[in-house]
Amino acid sequence: MRVEIWSDVACPWCYIGKARFEQGLAGFEHKDEVEVVFRSYELDPNRAEGDTTQVIPMLARKYGMSEAQARQAEQRVADNARSEGLGYIAEGRDHGSTFAIHRLLHFAKTKGVQNELIDLTFKANFAEERSVFDRARVLELAVEAGLDKDDAAAVYDDPEAYATEVRQDEREAQELGANGVPFFVLDRRYGVSGGQPADVFKQALEEAWATRPQPLKLPSVPGLGPDDIGVSGDVCGPDGCAVPQR
Amino acid sequence: MRVEIWSDVACPWCYIGKARFEQGLAGFEHKDEVEVVFRSYELDPNRAEGDTTQVIPMLARKYGMSEAQARQAEQRVADNARSEGLGYIAEGRDHGSTFAIHRLLHFAKTKGVQNELIDLTFKANFAEERSVFDRARVLELAVEAGLDKDDAAAVYDDPEAYATEVRQDEREAQELGANGVPFFVLDRRYGVSGGQPADVFKQALEEAWATRPQPLKLPSVPGLGPDDIGVSGDVCGPDGCAVPQR
Repeated sequence: MRVEIWSDVACPWCYIGKARFEQGLAGFEHKDEVEVVFRSYELDPNRAEGDTTQVIPMLARKYGMSEAQARQAEQRVADNARSEGLGYIAEGRDHGSTFAIHRLLHFAKTKGVQNELIDLTFKANFAEERSVFDRARVLELAVEAGLDKDDAAAVYDDPEAYATEVRQDEREAQELGANGVPFFVLDRRYGVSGGQPADVFKQALEEAWATRPQPLKLPSVPGLGPDDIGVSGDVCGPDGCAVPQR
Repeated sequence: MRVEIWSDVACPWCYIGKARFEQGLAGFEHKDEVEVVFRSYELDPNRAEGDTTQVIPMLARKYGMSEAQARQAEQRVADNARSEGLGYIAEGRDHGSTFAIHRLLHFAKTKGVQNELIDLTFKANFAEERSVFDRARVLELAVEAGLDKDDAAAVYDDPEAYATEVRQDEREAQELGANGVPFFVLDRRYGVSGGQPADVFKQALEEAWATRPQPLKLPSVPGLGPDDIGVSGDVCGPDGCAVPQR
């Protein structure tokens, strides 16, 4: 079974939701047969690279509230994070473009360390004093995740590297009906939206498992079956390999 | 779009078919949106680890033919391989259990180097003088593919490491109706069997692309929608993040 998780590293509920999902998954009987794939979703896709601001004033402006109210709101999200055992600095965090980070996460996927880089980036963004909207910091995290520094820098510095993959993920999120993130998609059959309690994720996994389609014998591509094109499609089987006649 | 390829590294048509598939894929307009995943299939699953024999006498026994006839049959497969630009030693090759190699290929997948290890192992088995049914040789290939030698050795030496993944792949091949390998599965909707000409793969990719299901808005898991469980599933969207009330 395959679970795809659309997230942004700047999204607090994605950070909390990932921990809750993993807790739900840990209690799921068939967890070893679940493949988890991360997908990109930028909360602020129009923000320019390098246009970095502080979270609290940004929230106050966006919601039309006072900075004191924005601070209280952040504090409530922080309480939720801490109840999951996650560090959370409610004030002084930066907000900026996450496009380069998403591109790098796609590169990390090709190296088998995407999950490591996501966890490190979430932690760096929400639980550490230093800003993650900073080239040097991101490259430190990339190396910590297991990437080669020069390779990671080459991806970070080329705005087109893995850009197609990020945009494709975002287009798919829309097509699948995501209204926000985190957005969890189970086998492309069910969607679960938001940082739900761990038990909800566990129940969703159980439901998706119980209703998974039983594989059928697959048809050949129409017009390309052996009878249509006159080739035998030489195979090897338990009785040996087909030997072509001269 | 996702293409899964069931193969055995001891299967000549898998070696040839992979090259032909890649040639067909290279000519496919949407090749950048195709994800290729390799799956395990042992041609000789009952062969014990370490029970290694020569290919020509093994073929002669299996088909009830003379060794001269087996040699001619191998020569014809070699001609097919060479017509794809692939090296092929038609005589003197070893045959043995590929279970440990499949386990290692699953480990390589977690490190993002599965395709590298498959290509190196195919080449080592079919085009090089040295046997691939040899621990030291397999570990050399693992290192060449980019794996850590100690990590690869630990997987190789533990018969249960990634054994579940190999068996699961083999069970799925059966469920999908594979009668032999290579077996190509396009988006779990179509099957293409055998080392078909590159053009057949290209046409199959085009057909699968043209008929790919258009994503629908996904339903919530029954009984777990917001109305059922009374939680809002806090998300972050373009307008900000949900802030829980105390």
